Amino acid sequence: MNDEEFMRRALFLAERGRYSVSPNPMVGAVIVRDGNVISEGFHARAGEPHAEIVALRECDDPRGATLYTNLEPCSHQGRTGPCAEAIIRAGIARVVVAMTDPNELVDGRGIAMLRAAGIEVTTGMLEADARRLNEKFVWSVTQQLPFVLLKAGMTLDGKLATVARESQWITSEDARQKSLALREEFDAILVGSGTVKADNPRLTRRLGLASGITPWTRVVLDGNGDVPPHAQLLTDGGRTILFTSNAAQHTGAEIVPIQGRADLVYVLRELHTRGIRSVLVEGGSLLHTEFIRGGLWQKMIAFVAPLIVGGAEAPAILQGEGVSRLTEGYRFRFDRVEFVGNDLMITAYPN
Amino acid sequence: MNDEEFMRRALFLAERGRYSVSPNPMVGAVIVRDGNVISEGFHARAGEPHAEIVALRECDDPRGATLYTNLEPCSHQGRTGPCAEAIIRAGIARVVVAMTDPNELVDGRGIAMLRAAGIEVTTGMLEADARRLNEKFVWSVTQQLPFVLLKAGMTLDGKLATVARESQWITSEDARQKSLALREEFDAILVGSGTVKADNPRLTRRLGLASGITPWTRVVLDGNGDVPPHAQLLTDGGRTILFTSNAAQHTGAEIVPIQGRADLVYVLRELHTRGIRSVLVEGGSLLHTEFIRGGLWQKMIAFVAPLIVGGAEAPAILQGEGVSRLTEGYRFRFDRVEFVGNDLMITAYPN
Repeated sequence: MNDEEFMRRALFLAERGRYSVSPNPMVGAVIVRDGNVISEGFHARAGEPHAEIVALRECDDPRGATLYTNLEPCSHQGRTGPCAEAIIRAGIARVVVAMTDPNELVDGRGIAMLRAAGIEVTTGMLEADARRLNEKFVWSVTQQLPFVLLKAGMTLDGKLATVARESQWITSEDARQKSLALREEFDAILVGSGTVKADNPRLTRRLGLASGITPWTRVVLDGNGDVPPHAQLLTDGGRTILFTSNAAQHTGAEIVPIQGRADLVYVLRELHTRGIRSVLVEGGSLLHTEFIRGGLWQKMIAFVAPLIVGGAEAPAILQGEGVSRLTEGYRFRFDRVEFVGNDLMITAYPN
Repeated sequence: MNDEEFMRRALFLAERGRYSVSPNPMVGAVIVRDGNVISEGFHARAGEPHAEIVALRECDDPRGATLYTNLEPCSHQGRTGPCAEAIIRAGIARVVVAMTDPNELVDGRGIAMLRAAGIEVTTGMLEADARRLNEKFVWSVTQQLPFVLLKAGMTLDGKLATVARESQWITSEDARQKSLALREEFDAILVGSGTVKADNPRLTRRLGLASGITPWTRVVLDGNGDVPPHAQLLTDGGRTILFTSNAAQHTGAEIVPIQGRADLVYVLRELHTRGIRSVLVEGGSLLHTEFIRGGLWQKMIAFVAPLIVGGAEAPAILQGEGVSRLTEGYRFRFDRVEFVGNDLMITAYPN
């Protein structure tokens, strides 16, 4: 095995923290001597030891070995002390890192500490994969805003529902399961008041994948102030943040008063202040439209069903006037596409 | 190598006739002795020898060998005599066939002839691939109607153009090249009068892939009788069939008089009568809608651009009212999806 293969293993291990490390990044570590893995670790849950510490603890004799990790070892005091110091103390001879930690508390200091101690450090190995893996962390730490995923279930003709507003179920059971899994890796699920009034959804986590310490949150934008106080997600005891122009009506949820239609940048800032690092936007149609028009999304996942329903008035992923010229259209980049049951799952990123 | 691998080779060879064998099927043949290929052939062009004949001619000594072919050897007199007879005469010991020839002149008779001569015949090897390869041939021969491919270039929100009718260019250059290649494997390209009036297209074959004997044809549906007589595709000397309610106005093209909006089943029957075995429907929006509503398509290829344009009034793949209930929607089956440049090429079949 070579450097790249060991780093791939570190990324694979990091992935195990997907549903439990927020607000921390996913990190894996592999310790190798003479081409053999002698120890491994990953960050299992926010508040628990970092990957490097886990790998070092499990290692009989790390002296002279090489440590692979997808993220720069931290240089600041955490619950287990700076990882960079632990690596130096353990006598590791070489560290291979996929990407530097964009957290301003680290940002190269970890690597500098290692080098100052005479450790050989290689950086940039599988960096693109590492950035992708921790896209939510990188965005929220550098922008001080939550990472926004737009999720839509639609027909091949871009409709989120029929002209009669029927939307259950456009996509297949497999797509719905995948959709439920997405909920568990995001700190919050965001919907508009129209969705709450129409479907009275629970927006719960149902698969039991998530086990992080970050509280799971529903967010409702209620610029019209007409979300009923008895809506399930306001009364079921789970955490809900309600941005509303009718604060007087509500008592249960966390209320953020707004005047009229919510300004999305304000909403995102408020959510970040409340510790929310990633948001899954589940709709409806108007909310998707506002995020698209505002260029306020970081990733899009469209589940596309093999179905055409038509209807100019049917809710679509972009509502309202539409652009005149193609050059004014909202362009992005398809990243990948997979079959999920009979549907396609299309992943896109802004250009 | 085993039976399946030799059959895969026969399918690979057959594919070489894609742009030249219509109205015949694509056929490849491989002759094998003791696990080694001793000869190969394929049907290169309508009017030229069948694959089996080519492979036998190229073979020093076919006696006792096994012949693999994706289509049942013919039993009827063609330009080179029945292939089944030639195989028997050559002393082939075993024939492996992917599918029987649905042509009513053959339909099992070829296999029966081989068996009657004491040749061991295995059928059904990679049959699904073989049917897919010759989907146009199988459909037209069994239904006595041309095989219809709906082709659309659209945005992720199902629009074929913006609200200002701008449609050039939604998809990328790569998708357009792929689209031009499709033209060369279909006998005819079908468009509505709106497309002719709006774009005055040539609808020519430009890539030089096609070299068959089947004349290449444009078909225009002009129920409103308002296609201008000077339209390029009516005056450029190429073959065009014009279904029109205003026959008096036209002299150049082949005219089929109709009263008002064309009945598509009638159109397809008329085209089949004129020797057209496959039709590429290039739009516009209304024509796609009629084929979808009528369930009159056999395959759909949608080039989907990473672009959203919106607009209730923008031309979409399904125009008009739209269905109320999802169960009334037009359901089909995604078969595969590939990246073509920055776009997705989605292939679908009716359920």
